[in-house]
Parts: sequence; C-alpha cells; structure tokens
Amino acid sequence: MDPAMPSAPIRVTVWHEHVHDRVNAAVKKLYPKGMHAEMKSAIQEHLGSAVTVRTALLEEPEHGLTDEVLANTDVLTWWGHCAHDQVDDAIVEKVHRRVLEGMGLIVLHSGHYSKIFKRLLGTTCSLRWREAGEKERLWCLMTGHPIADGLDDEYFEIEHTEMYGEFFDIPTPDELIFVSWFEGGEVFRSGCTWNRGKGKIFYFRPGHETFPIYYHKQVRRILANAVKHLTPSRCSAPVRLEAPCIDPPLSPIATVHEVDQSLHEH
Amino acid sequence: MDPAMPSAPIRVTVWHEHVHDRVNAAVKKLYPKGMHAEMKSAIQEHLGSAVTVRTALLEEPEHGLTDEVLANTDVLTWWGHCAHDQVDDAIVEKVHRRVLEGMGLIVLHSGHYSKIFKRLLGTTCSLRWREAGEKERLWCLMTGHPIADGLDDEYFEIEHTEMYGEFFDIPTPDELIFVSWFEGGEVFRSGCTWNRGKGKIFYFRPGHETFPIYYHKQVRRILANAVKHLTPSRCSAPVRLEAPCIDPPLSPIATVHEVDQSLHEH
Amino acid sequence: MDPAMPSAPIRVTVWHEHVHDRVNAAVKKLYPKGMHAEMKSAIQEHLGSAVTVRTALLEEPEHGLTDEVLANTDVLTWWGHCAHDQVDDAIVEKVHRRVLEGMGLIVLHSGHYSKIFKRLLGTTCSLRWREAGEKERLWCLMTGHPIADGLDDEYFEIEHTEMYGEFFDIPTPDELIFVSWFEGGEVFRSGCTWNRGKGKIFYFRPGHETFPIYYHKQVRRILANAVKHLTPSRCSAPVRLEAPCIDPPLSPIATVHEVDQSLHEH
Amino acid sequence: MDPAMPSAPIRVTVWHEHVHDRVNAAVKKLYPKGMHAEMKSAIQEHLGSAVTVRTALLEEPEHGLTDEVLANTDVLTWWGHCAHDQVDDAIVEKVHRRVLEGMGLIVLHSGHYSKIFKRLLGTTCSLRWREAGEKERLWCLMTGHPIADGLDDEYFEIEHTEMYGEFFDIPTPDELIFVSWFEGGEVFRSGCTWNRGKGKIFYFRPGHETFPIYYHKQVRRILANAVKHLTPSRCSAPVRLEAPCIDPPLSPIATVHEVDQSLHEH
Repeated sequence: MDPAMPSAPIRVTVWHEHVHDRVNAAVKKLYPKGMHAEMKSAIQEHLGSAVTVRTALLEEPEHGLTDEVLANTDVLTWWGHCAHDQVDDAIVEKVHRRVLEGMGLIVLHSGHYSKIFKRLLGTTCSLRWREAGEKERLWCLMTGHPIADGLDDEYFEIEHTEMYGEFFDIPTPDELIFVSWFEGGEVFRSGCTWNRGKGKIFYFRPGHETFPIYYHKQVRRILANAVKHLTPSRCSAPVRLEAPCIDPPLSPIATVHEVDQSLHEH
Repeated sequence: MDPAMPSAPIRVTVWHEHVHDRVNAAVKKLYPKGMHAEMKSAIQEHLGSAVTVRTALLEEPEHGLTDEVLANTDVLTWWGHCAHDQVDDAIVEKVHRRVLEGMGLIVLHSGHYSKIFKRLLGTTCSLRWREAGEKERLWCLMTGHPIADGLDDEYFEIEHTEMYGEFFDIPTPDELIFVSWFEGGEVFRSGCTWNRGKGKIFYFRPGHETFPIYYHKQVRRILANAVKHLTPSRCSAPVRLEAPCIDPPLSPIATVHEVDQSLHEH
Repeated sequence: MDPAMPSAPIRVTVWHEHVHDRVNAAVKKLYPKGMHAEMKSAIQEHLGSAVTVRTALLEEPEHGLTDEVLANTDVLTWWGHCAHDQVDDAIVEKVHRRVLEGMGLIVLHSGHYSKIFKRLLGTTCSLRWREAGEKERLWCLMTGHPIADGLDDEYFEIEHTEMYGEFFDIPTPDELIFVSWFEGGEVFRSGCTWNRGKGKIFYFRPGHETFPIYYHKQVRRILANAVKHLTPSRCSAPVRLEAPCIDPPLSPIATVHEVDQSLHEH
Repeated sequence: MDPAMPSAPIRVTVWHEHVHDRVNAAVKKLYPKGMHAEMKSAIQEHLGSAVTVRTALLEEPEHGLTDEVLANTDVLTWWGHCAHDQVDDAIVEKVHRRVLEGMGLIVLHSGHYSKIFKRLLGTTCSLRWREAGEKERLWCLMTGHPIADGLDDEYFEIEHTEMYGEFFDIPTPDELIFVSWFEGGEVFRSGCTWNRGKGKIFYFRPGHETFPIYYHKQVRRILANAVKHLTPSRCSAPVRLEAPCIDPPLSPIATVHEVDQSLHEH
C-alpha cells in the first residue's frame, strides 16, 4: 500500500438548511435542485473518485445527521441562515463531539451564526453586513496553503455579493488564509481555520443565496481543497474526551503521599 | 493626567466555590479563612493601592455575581472544583458576556472544568491527573511576558502538588507562557492566554486545595501580574455584540441592487 | 512603591533615516524639523512625563545608536526608506541583540524593508505598493488591545496615502491588530506584533513621507500606545542568549552515562 | 487524474553534515553507512513509491545542494552539529530562497544551531542541554495532526538520549505538536512548525548521534509523516519575492495625485 494515498474515499456530508431555496422564487431559480446539490457537485468535480458525498437537510429526521451518518462522515459542510434556531440542541452536541473526535467541519457564509459554530468558538461570531451587490476581492495571505491550491493569482474576485465586515467576533484563527476587500469599504477574515480537539474547522465566507456563488470557479475549488485538507488521519492515537487518573505514575515519585479520595468525588 | 498610569484602582473580584475549605478538615486547616482570602491577600500584597479586591462565593445570592458586581469588575478570578454544576447557567451567561465586553478572566487550577471556561473555549478542557504529592517545575517560555515579571530564573518549583498532564483539550493558546514538568512523567500547558471578544483569559494551573499553593511566593506574584495584565483599557472603542446592517456604505458602490428584505428577516 | 506604576520614565529612541526630509522640497515643507520631530512630539503628547524621548539619525556617528544609547533605550522606533543599505551591519547586529534582550522595536511604514526588520523576521518582507493618494481605512481586529486604546470606532481613515497590499511576506503575526482597506482594491496587515526573544516588535504601516501622516490624530495615539505596550518589564528573569550545559541535572537520573566530550567541542 | 493523489513522487533531499559518523568510532559503529542512510531508509520505509530520496553531504561540491538539486527538491531535511560554520553562506541563501518559494524544510536535533534555521527564524535558537543518557517522553499536543499520524498513544518514549531544555529561543511556533519531558527535570518544544513565505518548516528534536535515535520506530514514522506533510502543492499561485508597483489600480480611485518618482528611486 502506498501511504501517501488515502486508502478509501473521503466521506463527505453536505448539510443544508434548505429553506430559502424552497420558499423564495429568486433563490429557487438560481439553485433549482437546492444549494446543497451545487456544493456536492463542486466537491465531486474536483475530488472525483477520492470522495463520496451525501447530503443531509434540516427537514429530514434528525436533520439527516443520525449517529450512523455522523460516525461515517470524515468532513461535514454546514450552510444555514434563517433557521439556525430550529436545529436540535442534541444534534449540535453530537456534531460538536464528532469534531473533537476528529471530523472536519466546513462552515459556510451565514453559518457563522449557527449553533455549532458558536458552540465551538465560544464567541458571538457577530459581524457587520450589507446586501448591496457589491464587488468582493479575496486576498490570499497564505499562498502556499493547501486550501489555496490552484489559485492562479494573489487574489480572486466575486463580482456581486453580500458584504460581511469586521469586527468579526471570533477567536484568533489558527490560520488566516483569506481576507476580503469590499467595494463599499470593509475588510473581513474570509478564510480561517481553527483546531478543536482532534478536529479542524474551516470557515469560508462566500456563499450568499441570492448570488451564484456556488457556480464560481475559485469558490468551488476552495471548497474541494478544504474537504481534502480537513480529512482526518485514519490511524492516529485514540480519542480521549474524559479526564483519567494516571496511577501508578509513568516515572518514579520520591514522595509518599496519602490521598483523601473524598476530594475527588463529585 | 499621566496616561501611563491607571486613573483609578483595578477592580478585582475573587470568585470561589468555597466548599472543600468548609467541609474538609485538612483544607480548612490550610486555609482557615478560605482560599479566596489568600488569593485576595496575594493580589493586594503585590498591587497595593492600585487595586481594590472583593470576594464572591457560590453560596451567596447570585453566587455574589450580581449585575452590579459584574459591571464594576475589571478582572474576575475563578476557582471551583467539586461544585461546577451548581453554578447557575444564567450567571455563566452574564460572566461570558462581560468577558466579551472586555473583563479579564483568570481561571485557576480545577476551574479548567468550570462552565464558564468550557463555554468560552468550546472544547472539553479534559486532562490527565494524579494526586501523588509530586514535584512540579514550571518553565517559562515567554521570559519577557508581563505575567512572568519578577521571576528570577527560567523556572520555579512547587515541591508537592497534584499533577495535570497533556493531552489538555483546549484551543491553541494565543500565548503559551508556562509549561510544567512533573516528577511522575507528564508535561502540561500551565499558563495560557486567549483573547475572546474584547476580553482576555488567563488559565493558571497551580492551585490544588490540599497543598499550600496560594502561600507560594511565585504563584502569588504571577496571580497579581495576571490581574494587572488582564485589566481592560478604560477608553477604547464601544463594544458591539450584535450584527448591524451598514447602510449606506462607507465608500461608493457602482452596482444598483434590489434587496429582498424577506431573506434577512428571521 | 506602587507596582502598577512604572518606577521610572520609559526611555524612547526615535530613529530616523532623515534623507527625504532634507533633500526633497515637498517632504521638507511637510516636516520642516524632520519626521522624527513629529514622531517625538506624538509620543510626548500622549505619554507626557511617563516618557523621555531622544532622536537618533542615520547621519550621526554610529547612526546615533551607540552602545550607551542602546543600553538605555526601552523602546526604539524605526523609520527608513531610501537608505536601508547605508545602515551599518554592526549596528543592525547590536539592535538585533537588544531586541532579543527585551527592548521594544516599532517599525514604521517603509521600514518593512529595513535590515533589522528582515533580520528579525527571516522573510523578504516584500509587498505590493502604489502611490496614488488613495483613501485607507484601518479596521481594528482586536478592539480590546492596548495598542488600539482610545479609538472611538471599529475603524479610522487616512484620507490620502500610499498603498501597501498583500501578499505581505511576513511570518504569521503573533497578534494582528489592524487590517487596512484601500480604495484601489487591496488589503494589508497594517498593525502586527511578534515576540522575539524577550522583546516585542510592532509593525505599523502608516507613515508615508509625502502625506501628513504623523499629524494624524489616531496615528499619533497608536504610536504612543505602542511605545507604552512594548516597554519591557524592569525586573524579570535574566537574559540568556547562549546554550549552557546543565550539569548536574535538576532532578535525579537513573542511568549512568559516559560522555565523549570531543563530540561537544566545536 | 485524481486530484487527491499526488501526480508524481515527492522529491526528498536528506542533507547531512557527516562528520561525527566519519571520525568518531562510537557514532561510526552506530551508523556505519552514515546517519543520512538511516534517515533515507526511514522515509522510504513509510512512503515507498510515493517518494524519491537522494542524499547530499557537506563534503560534496556545493555541499551537494546545486541549483539543479534544489530546484528539484520538494522537501529538504537538515542535520548538522559541529560544522555549521563550514556551510557556505551562498548555499544558505539559496536554501532560504527555496523555502520562501515553497520547499519544505525539516530541521533535525542539533540543526537548531544551523545557519539556515537561524536565518529563517531570526532568533538565537539557543537552549539548555545535557548529555546524560536520560529518558525522554514526547507528549503530543495536537493528536489529530498529520505529523503525529500513526502514534498509538498520547506520548512515546526514548529510553536514553541527550537533553534539550527551555528556554528555547525561537519565535512562537505556528503549531506546537510535541513537548518533551526529560528525566533530569526539563521540558522542551520538540516538534514545531512555522510558515515562511510559501514554505513550511518543521523542527524535530530527537536525533542525537551517540544514541540509536534514527532506528526508533516512532521517530522514523514522524520523519516520514513530516516529509509528506511539508510537500508543497504543485499548482498554486506564482511565487513573488519582489515588491511590484500596482498601476493602474484594481478598483477606481477618486483622487488625482501627482507622484514624485524620485522618492521611489533607490
């Protein structure tokens, strides 16, 4: 076996709120099969047989994120906007746990206000915004990063889009890959990664539902790159989410010490 | 007025669970006035008239953390161990909000499992541990950091203590100031800072209740240093925790764009 | 003594290349006493008696940075543009060493190409640029940071300036405080800190010589804030720049081991 | 073509000082074919046909690092100890440039004092040390990191080795993957990455020449993991090491501004 090559396809689940593209005529016209179909197509276009992609929707039982689905997901992508509150807290807990266990999580655009993103980051994740169809230019600050692979310049443009601006209330990213310039005067940390437990999170700003963002060449490529980059290793150390008492110690301790066990019971 | 000098004393609230030092004879003997009294004394010893320190206990109404107290706290220190679950979620929410608004938060020892710490960090905050009275040697990785000010060597020692070991399930710290060596074989990230919103968090590992940790010279100094370092600026930009729509834009936008307001109502 | 207050004034040295403001009529008109005079005035305006400021110029013996001056400098500010190559390598070495020992270093605008900045960061420090008198809007990403203290909004503007754009070839900053938006389409990491040894570096982008940048209210405030923030502690652990052999060990080692000293001689 | 799989083998160059294993009997006995042979074997063992490995030695013309070799190297590993000063500055410059262009660089053990490491990091890279044959236990702080892939516990041990201890004078690592515990009482940041330009650096502490470190199971695995992880993308944005003037601007600028070109000539 060649260790440089994954032994099995990356298992991706594209999660989508799927409300606006059902009820709003303009969004429906833009994404007749739903935005999730276009995200799935982008990932498949670039990763081919190296990936298997399923979709999961808010409207499905357990939002499509059953224990079985989550256990068999290497990377989960998340798009939500108007129905964040309808996501069941128990499902959020399960997704949270899976990320800490190593599952990659890609949070897209308005997903910055999703329960799972705020739960993982611990901040309000608030930002400034404006829908004025303005130009966005995404500058790459880590031109050698695998998520930026295949870009042919130091920036790329989205002709018309919604604006998100700083201050974006997030923890300092572990990596800041893209910063957006907006015609109307703002900047934004548009591509960020954070490590949490054994898992990795990538937030990617583009994705507004009234613009054809998921048909955009570079957006599609970056989405696929991120899927590949966030795929967990298959054979690393076992996950530990609890706090074990280590007794006896690994190395000798000179002191003799009496423990009052009652202080550790709670 | 001299801008290099604070215009008013730093307002510190020392929060303490205060269970073991009431019910356990050994802890009571060690800290007859409670651990919070010794923490308060350490801060006062080093910061003198530059600080005013009050204490707040779990057993008090609203755990001593009323809106008025929180609004008048620049830096909050937090010690808890066996009663994390008894802290009211509503109080945790208020403390969380105050940190994002700029209040400094110092989390001590077993406070790693407090609701507020896990809420701010988004991970399990689990670790390995052992109470065997072993030696701990804390190495300073940022010898120029204000929190390490006054240390006279690259390390300091605690003769007998409880052990905390890696893997410590926390987000990558913004600053890693101390790493502990333990006689029994573990290492631990013992002094870490994170920025969250406008606030700063410092986690400091030492502080086990059955050892005289808060009488330890360097521990006392570091606690006081951290109070000083986490004090928020008094005249910075207004806090914004919501997501405002910015209209009209700051700079001109060429496109004319019609907004479907229904997509932004939720 | 009150430990929250500095025991003595911060000793600042403002270093300036001082070429354009001697030979170019427009720059001379803007800064009749030299740009260094205006920087000095900005620092004094905000820090008053908490600071003593001297200036040092390229044209002076040892560029004004004698051993005595460096040994008595807490924070050094650096502005250069057309004469980086004329700075003596031996002086650069001394400044480098002083930063590792704890001296704060503020590098301004075109100082990004100075020998000392490249030496400390290890990269080319190259960037995109354009002089077109365009608008710059500096967004604050760390609204609680001491260097941003006193700003009354999430951004501030410079009406006309030279542009610097990404990709800016620098190591990942330890803190990214400001990101600039430029009218002509670029973004830039305009306010960054890095720790090196015991010292701290702050790079601040504004400062082009043909625009009245050092008369700008917020620029002056940030410069003074940075001086205050980069001041080293007065009583921390001794500096060690060498690699000592630690023998005997701090804790007992079970093995008996014979050392071949010849392997350590070089 | 499957984009998840590299289109061609990773081209690795193992650089070795190759002095002690020629002149010292004990080292020669341990590594009869030289340490570089064992490093090469470790990489090949784990990466098989996904890699081609050549070696380059100090004693060779241009230290084996000709323009042709460097241009065809994806990842360079570096081991040196007693002959750092004999490495030609011109070669160091070339390696430096190649890293900024994207070549991965793995610096091993005593390579912390090599010219190239100090040049890239900008600090003294000094540390504490002791050769006493003591035990080292390497703790993994990023258990999901690709470089830690295949480890079956949260730590691994090296029974007898030389000690390196903090304070290690390096810039804050972008990622801190391993921290070592030493029997004699020290800790050390043993596995660190930094991004510089388009390239990535990994420092890995183990590797002392008088102990059989490169026969150690986990050390071999980590070395191979790092090679794989540091391999640059094959199709990313063009490298830019200079500072281009961007004229005309990407977006319209309202102001009319006259440039004095003499200010930009130097």
